[in-house]
Amino acid sequence: MERIPILRMGHYLLVTIQVELYDRLALSLETDLVQMVNKTSAKGVLIDISAVAIVDSFMGRIIGNIASMSKILDAQTVVVGMQPAVAITLVELGLSLPNVFTALDVQKGMDLLASMIDVEQEDFDDYEDNNS
Amino acid sequence: MERIPILRMGHYLLVTIQVELYDRLALSLETDLVQMVNKTSAKGVLIDISAVAIVDSFMGRIIGNIASMSKILDAQTVVVGMQPAVAITLVELGLSLPNVFTALDVQKGMDLLASMIDVEQEDFDDYEDNNS
Repeated sequence: MERIPILRMGHYLLVTIQVELYDRLALSLETDLVQMVNKTSAKGVLIDISAVAIVDSFMGRIIGNIASMSKILDAQTVVVGMQPAVAITLVELGLSLPNVFTALDVQKGMDLLASMIDVEQEDFDDYEDNNS
Repeated sequence: MERIPILRMGHYLLVTIQVELYDRLALSLETDLVQMVNKTSAKGVLIDISAVAIVDSFMGRIIGNIASMSKILDAQTVVVGMQPAVAITLVELGLSLPNVFTALDVQKGMDLLASMIDVEQEDFDDYEDNNS
């Protein structure tokens, strides 16, 4: 199976990574995801990596890339379900994913996204109030 | 990667099938899923098969099994994202999945589950009203 499916759930997109990300698959995931953010006006992207037991610098970089691309398109990225061993490896590799939000599971990730989008909306409302 | 992750979202569980289901993986998915339904008191199970391009009778049977097991544990199963070619193959194989609900995508599947659970709750309320 050649593509990782991107599931739309309301204002969010959900990607579950279950297979090893090799070059071409990772690139097509990046492309598909930014197109999907654009098409659906998604406000948040959830990346579930609970099935990922082994991580390398390539995968860390792909996650960072996706977060940066989504951010430019005004969507927040939350990585969920990271296994403790993966967190250890990422930090040991020097990849602490500074721009990526994380949550323990999908449920908590959605709550986090909801709170972030609320906060952003409030900021915008404040801005509008101050400038009206 | 040896297991298919089961994601909890509120009252629902979501499973995305991205890899070919061989015997052991399918059995562990069945076991994990019924345990998860039991543990989380989930009311619905969404199985996303949008990444599945080729289906055989084994996979059709596994989906039917999961639906029957969940039903006994009082959870509805909705299969979402089926590709047209997969629907054609299933019917040609004589597997029309009679007990399985389907929806075009995750969003519509969640709406369907919500409406089913509402209906069930109303039925229960009616029953209680009639017997009080």
